[in-house]
Amino acid sequence: MSKVLIVYYSRTGNTEKMANLVKEGAESEGVEVTCKKVQDIVVNELLDVQGIIVGSPVHYGSMSAEIKRLFDDSVKLHGKLEGKVGGAFASSVNIGGGNETTIMDILKCMLIHGMIIQGVYQGDHYGPVAIGSPDERSSEQCIKYGQRIAKLVKTIFENKR
Amino acid sequence: MSKVLIVYYSRTGNTEKMANLVKEGAESEGVEVTCKKVQDIVVNELLDVQGIIVGSPVHYGSMSAEIKRLFDDSVKLHGKLEGKVGGAFASSVNIGGGNETTIMDILKCMLIHGMIIQGVYQGDHYGPVAIGSPDERSSEQCIKYGQRIAKLVKTIFENKR
Amino acid sequence: MSKVLIVYYSRTGNTEKMANLVKEGAESEGVEVTCKKVQDIVVNELLDVQGIIVGSPVHYGSMSAEIKRLFDDSVKLHGKLEGKVGGAFASSVNIGGGNETTIMDILKCMLIHGMIIQGVYQGDHYGPVAIGSPDERSSEQCIKYGQRIAKLVKTIFENKR
Amino acid sequence: MSKVLIVYYSRTGNTEKMANLVKEGAESEGVEVTCKKVQDIVVNELLDVQGIIVGSPVHYGSMSAEIKRLFDDSVKLHGKLEGKVGGAFASSVNIGGGNETTIMDILKCMLIHGMIIQGVYQGDHYGPVAIGSPDERSSEQCIKYGQRIAKLVKTIFENKR
Repeated sequence: MSKVLIVYYSRTGNTEKMANLVKEGAESEGVEVTCKKVQDIVVNELLDVQGIIVGSPVHYGSMSAEIKRLFDDSVKLHGKLEGKVGGAFASSVNIGGGNETTIMDILKCMLIHGMIIQGVYQGDHYGPVAIGSPDERSSEQCIKYGQRIAKLVKTIFENKR
Repeated sequence: MSKVLIVYYSRTGNTEKMANLVKEGAESEGVEVTCKKVQDIVVNELLDVQGIIVGSPVHYGSMSAEIKRLFDDSVKLHGKLEGKVGGAFASSVNIGGGNETTIMDILKCMLIHGMIIQGVYQGDHYGPVAIGSPDERSSEQCIKYGQRIAKLVKTIFENKR
Repeated sequence: MSKVLIVYYSRTGNTEKMANLVKEGAESEGVEVTCKKVQDIVVNELLDVQGIIVGSPVHYGSMSAEIKRLFDDSVKLHGKLEGKVGGAFASSVNIGGGNETTIMDILKCMLIHGMIIQGVYQGDHYGPVAIGSPDERSSEQCIKYGQRIAKLVKTIFENKR
Repeated sequence: MSKVLIVYYSRTGNTEKMANLVKEGAESEGVEVTCKKVQDIVVNELLDVQGIIVGSPVHYGSMSAEIKRLFDDSVKLHGKLEGKVGGAFASSVNIGGGNETTIMDILKCMLIHGMIIQGVYQGDHYGPVAIGSPDERSSEQCIKYGQRIAKLVKTIFENKR
């Protein structure tokens, strides 16, 4: 069974709620999902999975320094994450407050690792966004995104379409 | 009196409403404001003003092709817009639908012209965003943004602080 | 046999040279490649292929208006490009002149279509870049990128790994 | 006399060389320049200057975690940096390796603080870029950028044009 790791940083609990919703979605597709705070993982755990989804609050229009630290530390694995599937989600205080740019910055890190990402043609195009605590709209986006990433993992690693 | 030009593209009318609100804000600061559809301006009009604010609907996460056409055509003025003040706003259907990236893409065009831009520490950080027709929150952001850009124009071109 | 379409805009011929190198790389992986100027395609041709690679000169830090026009027109296909593989390359006059942001802007359009993209862990991370006419370094990046995109198409559409 | 602070992170020394070149340029315009490693400043020092220029190596397409930490910590000053002038520069191993996106990510942080930034119409449009140790081209860009930021500080804070 393919494995997906969700890594997040959360201070207020909003990003954590999103992480759990993304997990729910991914699990519904029959992949094994681990969901961890960034403080609780060691970078080598990124090697053990086929899909990596990273969530962050929006801090100055980008991922929190804690999440950036993880990516900087992941340089020791450089080249070894190639071909894995990636995804991102973000939680902010405001509309127009940097959600999209945060997600894109996480996705850029993943592209530089040679990872594979996919957008969403309906709803939150780059990845799920919450304004404060995830509302109904945002919760649905998170669940669907978890499903989507899990499906892409299965397509690529289990030859299931 | 300093002059500000607002250029926008609008199909549904939402971006046009934003343009009028930005205009209202800028005028309240005592600058002369012209507000025009992108179809109705010639590129040389960009030379006649101290501030340029560009608004666009979100088309595939960036400015509409009509607005991009204006920037591409502005290459004939390259170097002559240096030091002018710039700003941007965007209207989209969804939260997380590309508002922020659209504004940043317009601001990038302005940076490449050597223009001066400023962010917003409260609210819509890169520039005003509307989801559909501008609601109360968005309208307030548009008015304040017009004021902000006008103030920056006056600071730089009229030595008023 | 899977099909890849390369679409580009080129005025000086530099982007066209890149397109031909990307084509060479993709063909070496055994996919059928069509390479066309943006002026010569109709938007519906995007439906007929499994992979779409778009090349542009850097105009104000983003794709040329001609390429943006194609993406704006592709809204009539919205939802139907989901799951296709995408890629991008760009040619500019300067280092630091907007290559990377141009590629990212094209990739954003593709994400919004629900397409699948992959980065490069060695070399030009987001996609191949040329400063002026593609030199040896850039040419190698283009060929390898064509191979990479073709391989991803085969992984996803032919279950070949 | 207006004050400019240059803050940078450097491991290999390349970003440090750039910092010194930017300093040389800014000083030639008659502003007081302090140049410090990010490890050696406390966040409150950002309050004492009119211009802030931040340099970083490119780590996964964005500023290093050490620089991001500074911005995250600067939230305690949120609102108090409004109207200050900002700038950014970046050093990477490769062309197309994330220079531009790193600079844009730093500039985004500054916009969210309500700071004022300016692009460059010739050369490195978003801010100076070095591939490895700064060569002649890059060194010239750094010096000119220091001059440009210093001039903008003087325009805004000393009413000198």
